[in-house]
Amino acid sequence: MSTAQRPIRLGVAGLGRAFTLMLPTLVQDSRVQLLAACDPRAAARAQFLRDFGAPAYPDIEGLAADPSVDAIYIASPHALHARHTCIAARHGKHVLVEKPMALTLAECDAMITACRAAGVQLIVGHCHSFDAPYAKARAIIAGGGVGPVRMIHALNYTDFLYRPRRPEELQTEAGGGVVFSQAAHQIDIVRLLAASAVTRVRAVTGAWDAQRPTEGAYSMLLWFETGAFASLGYSGYGHFDSDEWCDWTGEMGARKAQQDYGRARQRLARLHGRSDGAAEEARLKAASSYGGPDYRPAPAAAAAAHQHFGPVIVSCDLADLRPVPDGVWVYGDERRALVRLPAPAIPRHEVITELYAAIAQGVRPLHDGPWARATLEVCLALLQSAREDRDVTLARTSAGRAGR
Amino acid sequence: MSTAQRPIRLGVAGLGRAFTLMLPTLVQDSRVQLLAACDPRAAARAQFLRDFGAPAYPDIEGLAADPSVDAIYIASPHALHARHTCIAARHGKHVLVEKPMALTLAECDAMITACRAAGVQLIVGHCHSFDAPYAKARAIIAGGGVGPVRMIHALNYTDFLYRPRRPEELQTEAGGGVVFSQAAHQIDIVRLLAASAVTRVRAVTGAWDAQRPTEGAYSMLLWFETGAFASLGYSGYGHFDSDEWCDWTGEMGARKAQQDYGRARQRLARLHGRSDGAAEEARLKAASSYGGPDYRPAPAAAAAAHQHFGPVIVSCDLADLRPVPDGVWVYGDERRALVRLPAPAIPRHEVITELYAAIAQGVRPLHDGPWARATLEVCLALLQSAREDRDVTLARTSAGRAGR
Repeated sequence: MSTAQRPIRLGVAGLGRAFTLMLPTLVQDSRVQLLAACDPRAAARAQFLRDFGAPAYPDIEGLAADPSVDAIYIASPHALHARHTCIAARHGKHVLVEKPMALTLAECDAMITACRAAGVQLIVGHCHSFDAPYAKARAIIAGGGVGPVRMIHALNYTDFLYRPRRPEELQTEAGGGVVFSQAAHQIDIVRLLAASAVTRVRAVTGAWDAQRPTEGAYSMLLWFETGAFASLGYSGYGHFDSDEWCDWTGEMGARKAQQDYGRARQRLARLHGRSDGAAEEARLKAASSYGGPDYRPAPAAAAAAHQHFGPVIVSCDLADLRPVPDGVWVYGDERRALVRLPAPAIPRHEVITELYAAIAQGVRPLHDGPWARATLEVCLALLQSAREDRDVTLARTSAGRAGR
Repeated sequence: MSTAQRPIRLGVAGLGRAFTLMLPTLVQDSRVQLLAACDPRAAARAQFLRDFGAPAYPDIEGLAADPSVDAIYIASPHALHARHTCIAARHGKHVLVEKPMALTLAECDAMITACRAAGVQLIVGHCHSFDAPYAKARAIIAGGGVGPVRMIHALNYTDFLYRPRRPEELQTEAGGGVVFSQAAHQIDIVRLLAASAVTRVRAVTGAWDAQRPTEGAYSMLLWFETGAFASLGYSGYGHFDSDEWCDWTGEMGARKAQQDYGRARQRLARLHGRSDGAAEEARLKAASSYGGPDYRPAPAAAAAAHQHFGPVIVSCDLADLRPVPDGVWVYGDERRALVRLPAPAIPRHEVITELYAAIAQGVRPLHDGPWARATLEVCLALLQSAREDRDVTLARTSAGRAGR
C-alpha cells in the first residue's frame, strides 16, 4: 500500500517535552501511526514499548534504519535537529522536525540539501503558526477584502524561563533562551501574516536573572519587503501573563486556572540554594516528561479552543485583524465581528494535514525547510542586532523569505 | 493676597479642543479661578464672557497684558505654543502650556529661557503622564520593592486620525499627526516609569491614508541610560480599540459605549467627495468646541476611573506593574494584586496640584520645560529614525532627560 491509501508510519526521535506536547495529536489523528521511536532514556523507551507495542531504539541510527517507518518526527534537543534530520533523510525517511529548525543557517542548509538529495519531504513543526486562527487571518488577508497589511503587533508574557530546564536550555550558544524557543513561534506567525520577506531587524534582548543567564525577554522591530513593519515583544519572566488578553485561554487552548499564578517560579524556588540545583531541575523536567515517574498523559478531552501564542494585532488598510483562541476578530471600518472557529477535535491536526498532504499527495508544504530557515535567520538577526546594537539587514537569498 | 493664600488667577489662550478637555478641571478645582481668555473666534469669546463674566481678548497680547492674571494656560494650536509662552513670560505670567511643548527644540529652548529670565514657572500639560496610576506605578518602583525597571511595553489603538481635524493637524510639518499629539503622551509616560534618560531611538512610522497624509501609526524602541528598554506602539486608524484591554474605560476615564464602534470614521465619511471637505471638517471640529453651536459641556459627574493612555506593562526584576484606570496591578513572584486608586473627584487635578505647588509654594515641577523638551526630543528622533531608517542617538545635554 502506498502512503496515499494508509496512515503515515511515524517514528519519533526524542520522547521529551516536545513529544509529550505532540502525543495527543499523534495518537488521535488516524492519518499517522506511531511505529517506532528512539530516546537515550531507558525509562522512556520502556514506556513507549508498553504504550504502543512498538520498538524504541537507543539512538537515531536504529530508528532511521527501521524499514517499517515512512517518516521521522524529530523532537530531540535543538542542537541535534540537523544531525538527526540528515540521518533520517539518508535513510529515505520524510522528516517532521520541531522548531527551531536548527541553531545555524549552515545546519539548515545541510538539512535542506540532505532532504532534497534523498527526495524526502522536510516540514518544520509544530510551531504556533500552524494554529488555525493565524491561518484563517492569513486567508482573510489573502482574500483581499481588508486591504494590504501595514503593521503587526505581537506580544507574549509567559513563565517560560521558570519552567524546569536542562542546563543547555539556559545557554544561548546551545540553543537555549527565549529567542530560539519562543521567538521562533512569534516570528513564524508574524511572517505568515505579513506574507512578505523580512528585510531588516532591530532588536534588544534582556537577560536579567543571573541564575538563568540566557535571554528571557526581547523587543524587536521587523521590516518587510512590502513596506509593512512589525513590533514583537516577549517576556518569559513569569509575572504578567498576557493570556489575560486571550480570554484566559492558555497556549495549549485550555482555560487557564487563576489559582495557578506564580506556580512555575514557586516550584523552582524549592531548589534554590541546593548545590545540585541544576541537576535536580533537569531531573524535575525529565520526571514529568514521557517515561518519567511524574508523567501524566494529556487529558483526552478536546481543548476548549485553539492553541495560540499571545495577543497579535494585524493592521490592514480596511480592518485590524486579531487572531484569538476561538477565531479571528475583524475590526472593520463600520463594524467588528468575530469569525468563529470551532475548537479543534484533535489539537495540532494542522501539522498532520500538512505532513500528510506533502507525503501522500505531493503538496508542497508551507512550513518547509526554506520557510523555517528564514525564521531562524530572523532569530539569529535578533540576537545579532541586540549584541551589535544596530539594524541587521537580511540578504535576499532565501526562497523561504518570500511569504507564500 | 499672595498666591499662597488664594486661587491662581488663570487666563486661557485658546478656547479650542484642549481647553474643552481641561474645562471640567478648571471649573471644579478651587485652586484655580478662570479670569480671562483669548481666542480669535468671536463666538468662543462670547461664550466665555457669558459663562465666566470675564474678559476674552482676540489675541494673546491682550490677555498677557491683563493685570488680573497670574498664569496663562496656553491651549492654542501647537505651532503657537512657543510664541504664546514667550509673550506670557515677558508679561510676568506663569505658564501652563499644552503638550506637545512646541515643534522644535529651538522653540523649547526659547520658552525655557524666556520663563527663566522672567522668573515665572513653566509647566507642560495636561499630558497623560500626570494620570495618577502612572505616578503610583512610579512611586512603587521608587520604593525599591520591585527591583529595577528592565523593559516597558506600551501600546495604544485609537481612532485619533479620524476625529475632525483642522487642515494643519494632518500636516506633520505643522505639528500634525500622531507623533506630536499622541507619542508625546506615550513617551512622557514611559520616561516617567523608566526614570532614566533616553539614549537611543529606533522607530518606524505609518502614513497609510492618502486623504489624511500624516503619520497615523508608529512602532518604536527606546533605550535608557540605566540599560532598560521600551517598546512603544500606536495606531490611530480607528479599527481595534485597545481600551478593550483597559476594562473598556476610555482615555478620559469614562466607561466606553460599545455601540459607538466606528463612529469617528462614519461621521467623517459623510464629508467624503465634497469639494469643501477639508473646510467642512474644520467647521465640524469648531462646531463641537467651546463656543460652537454643537458644544456640550462635559458631564459634571465624576469619571468612573482615572484617565489613561492605553495598556502599559513595566517589567521589573521582582514584578511586572500594569497601570490601569482604577489603579496599578502588581504581578509579583508569588501573587498579583491591584493597588486600587479611587476615581478622582476632579479629573486632571494632578495638573493643578503641580501648578499650584510651583506657583504658590515654589516646588520645582516634574513636568517643567527641560522635562518636556526631552520628550519632544524623542518625538523628533522618532520621526528622524523613521525617515533616515536608522538608530538616532540622543546627546546628553538636556537636564530634563534624566528622569527625576
